[in-house]
Amino acid sequence: MKVELEKVKPMDIERRSFEIITEELGRELPEDTAPIIKRCIHTSADFDYADNLCFSENAVEKALAAIKAGACIVTDTQMAKAGINKKALAKFGGEVCCFMSDEDVAQAAKEKGTTRATVSMDKAASLKKTLIFAIGNAPTALVRLYELIEEQRIAPELIIGVPVGFVNVVQSKELIMQTDVPYIVARGRKGGSNIAACICNALLYMAGGR
Amino acid sequence: MKVELEKVKPMDIERRSFEIITEELGRELPEDTAPIIKRCIHTSADFDYADNLCFSENAVEKALAAIKAGACIVTDTQMAKAGINKKALAKFGGEVCCFMSDEDVAQAAKEKGTTRATVSMDKAASLKKTLIFAIGNAPTALVRLYELIEEQRIAPELIIGVPVGFVNVVQSKELIMQTDVPYIVARGRKGGSNIAACICNALLYMAGGR
Repeated sequence: MKVELEKVKPMDIERRSFEIITEELGRELPEDTAPIIKRCIHTSADFDYADNLCFSENAVEKALAAIKAGACIVTDTQMAKAGINKKALAKFGGEVCCFMSDEDVAQAAKEKGTTRATVSMDKAASLKKTLIFAIGNAPTALVRLYELIEEQRIAPELIIGVPVGFVNVVQSKELIMQTDVPYIVARGRKGGSNIAACICNALLYMAGGR
Repeated sequence: MKVELEKVKPMDIERRSFEIITEELGRELPEDTAPIIKRCIHTSADFDYADNLCFSENAVEKALAAIKAGACIVTDTQMAKAGINKKALAKFGGEVCCFMSDEDVAQAAKEKGTTRATVSMDKAASLKKTLIFAIGNAPTALVRLYELIEEQRIAPELIIGVPVGFVNVVQSKELIMQTDVPYIVARGRKGGSNIAACICNALLYMAGGR
């Protein structure tokens, strides 16, 4: 089979990709959420994100305000941390934290018979910083965030709730959507560290980070 | 709505997830490729990977031999590098390389009007090491690998060809499948850094890395 490559300059690949996505979507998306939804599709080639992404009222507006005010992003994987545009975030004074590989977190999780993700959320809660959570892997992180919110021990600016998987993933997202905290959630089983990072980047670029 | 969490111990979440995947797949997969296919579904909650993953003849057997012999893994994103179980790889003497953030790579890409991914592949080719490539993002990396193979300047042990996207992604994968190099390819548009990392990890665990 003869393979024909499309001639697109490196700098134009992303723009061309978004054109194709817009074309194939075949419908208008809300102006504030469109860049996020399209970037998730760009990251996964999965058009399900056009339907499964849920935004609380004015979530994007609130998220952009938080980013511009220098909010830090807490992730539940080193992969999500690696994927977030840290230069863009630094422009606003923010940084990315991930506590999953911390020795004290591993130790506490072992002692309590819980997940490192759960303990990571407790560690984040103790930070007393303005925080956005980007959870792409561990439903237990979302469940713990829900508890911390209910106990009024934490009040995040935004929760990006996009863990992926088969055990308590669906439920953990529903819990977050029952709180008063602004959220962007991929309803259902889908998501991932790549999706968590890409939603952060979409917000950073909307905020003017590049 | 009352949200009911399933009671599963942290250590059992992965096992339970794989049980659900096996159940919902509803069909037997080949013994050598099943752990890889199921881990991709586990990573994405996307059952498309049961159909789109293509393996060259004895690809898994060859990959496991290469890993056990200490092959290094070259990725095209820091995210994939972050996701690969580096401890498991180190047990066999291998390490993960990603040249995408290297200053010389950025410089050369700018001068040549090409992508950093392309230049990264040239840099990898100069390593003279036993290599597995795990490409989860840049089709231009696969296209360059194809050229380097055709020019007999490189002979990788395995190419994990799972870039994601809309411009030349489908074609770049078809090119790799036309070579004599062992491959694991996600045919079509889907893939990603998470999928690249998870295929590496599936192979590492099959090789006895954990």
